[in-house]
Amino acid sequence: MKLVSYALGGREGWGAVTGDGGPESGVIALGARLPAYPTTDALLAAGALDEARALAARTEPDLALADLRLRKPVARPGKVICVGVNYVERNEEYRDGSERPKWPSLFIRTAGSLVAHGEPILRPPESTQLDYEGEIAIVIGRAGRRIARADAAAHVAGLTCMNEGTLRDWLRHGKFNVTQGKNFEASGAIGPWLVTADAFADFGDLRVITRVNSEVRQDDTTARLMFPFEYLIEYISTFMRLEPGDVISTGTPTGAGARFDPPKWLVSGDLVEVEVPGIGTLGNRVEDERP
Amino acid sequence: MKLVSYALGGREGWGAVTGDGGPESGVIALGARLPAYPTTDALLAAGALDEARALAARTEPDLALADLRLRKPVARPGKVICVGVNYVERNEEYRDGSERPKWPSLFIRTAGSLVAHGEPILRPPESTQLDYEGEIAIVIGRAGRRIARADAAAHVAGLTCMNEGTLRDWLRHGKFNVTQGKNFEASGAIGPWLVTADAFADFGDLRVITRVNSEVRQDDTTARLMFPFEYLIEYISTFMRLEPGDVISTGTPTGAGARFDPPKWLVSGDLVEVEVPGIGTLGNRVEDERP
Repeated sequence: MKLVSYALGGREGWGAVTGDGGPESGVIALGARLPAYPTTDALLAAGALDEARALAARTEPDLALADLRLRKPVARPGKVICVGVNYVERNEEYRDGSERPKWPSLFIRTAGSLVAHGEPILRPPESTQLDYEGEIAIVIGRAGRRIARADAAAHVAGLTCMNEGTLRDWLRHGKFNVTQGKNFEASGAIGPWLVTADAFADFGDLRVITRVNSEVRQDDTTARLMFPFEYLIEYISTFMRLEPGDVISTGTPTGAGARFDPPKWLVSGDLVEVEVPGIGTLGNRVEDERP
Repeated sequence: MKLVSYALGGREGWGAVTGDGGPESGVIALGARLPAYPTTDALLAAGALDEARALAARTEPDLALADLRLRKPVARPGKVICVGVNYVERNEEYRDGSERPKWPSLFIRTAGSLVAHGEPILRPPESTQLDYEGEIAIVIGRAGRRIARADAAAHVAGLTCMNEGTLRDWLRHGKFNVTQGKNFEASGAIGPWLVTADAFADFGDLRVITRVNSEVRQDDTTARLMFPFEYLIEYISTFMRLEPGDVISTGTPTGAGARFDPPKWLVSGDLVEVEVPGIGTLGNRVEDERP
């Protein structure tokens, strides 16, 4: 099921996308039929995905996807945890001679640093080094702490796409930590929707492609992750209690703009697309922020 | 005004502590009188501190502070931003020959990593290197982005104490970033209450003292910060929109347990107190977590 949050005529809703998610797709307005769950956040918190799925299976679409303004798949995630280096070549990009890391590098993004599909990504006046990072993001469906790797998949509500947008020069402001460069307001995006976990046989070979103005910049699959999805859930839940709606963004392949010589920074008007076959395409234009 | 959140007889409330905050202090139950603000989070979000203060000024205390189980001053902060190295000597503790940093090192903690005054701090079975970091935390009262230093104080709701508890060996798990070691569930604490900004002439010479089992381990003042409170608000709001209830923990003085030879890690039964004259004392016992 493609679970989508949207606005239409000034009202907020959520539902299931029918068909392939292309421009002809319909949407079943589930939120209007399930008033106990005003948002997908509430649906996930209640553990009621099955109820939504059963209702969607017996209901005809009410709306045209093309008419909707999409919202983020989770409006207010409790936490957004990002993996710093995960695809094998990324570690080698650093050319610091380091061996493969033993554990993942993790950092946290605020919800405000991410916009929805179709909304502009903002390049702030403080930096010209806005960069993309196409990623697959896990949305947690069931709470847990110290989740065993074998049980990890059962805690996943579904997957979505992330553009883990970064201001490269602000990334190294701190002596440690990349917080600043990863948390400019509206510098990244998440969406277009959440595809529930039942749509995937497993998470072992999902492809992620990033395009800038139709040019492919990143293209890799989760078969080459140093830290697979189930490992990440096990590891992160060792120290943190994962809650429904929490997001884990699983790392980006080689090919970000910073790695070109000269670097290819994003500028106003650029269209960044993150496509994951089986999920869909997250698309956002870059705009210069006018404070 | 000392703004306190609490539980009493299974009910949650908030109010103002009268007197010095010592064991004989009373509490005016403001939440029960201002039902529009069920929590201090809601009070801050509504920008209604003045209303609470005016009501407290004309009301007698209803409750004895000693009878209350304290809650965190903000139950669900949107973000908790921590400063990594701020007191001058801390930078020298790293002995890496680095000059004073140009910008602060920042990282984010989850709300779940912090407990309230009087609740146990948990030492997880995954590490024996639980350490304290006494700090002063700013709670934001008024939203803003790109806040000028001269305007920063007007965005502060008040101050509280933080024990920015850390699992030292998990701090360097990542290639970059200290996320893991700073985000073990219930490894730190915040409280005991929020002292509103009007109680401070300025933030330029506030003392912070950390004691373990009555032994003073840290003792310094904000006069020696590399990045004063107003600078932090200006800098952080450059990239992030600050919202009411957001917390900025302003860094810890020299003298954490890791800096002793051999290191003095916290063990079950230890009492950690973070005292800031003008705010109060945050006290928590260490317990071994039993998963």
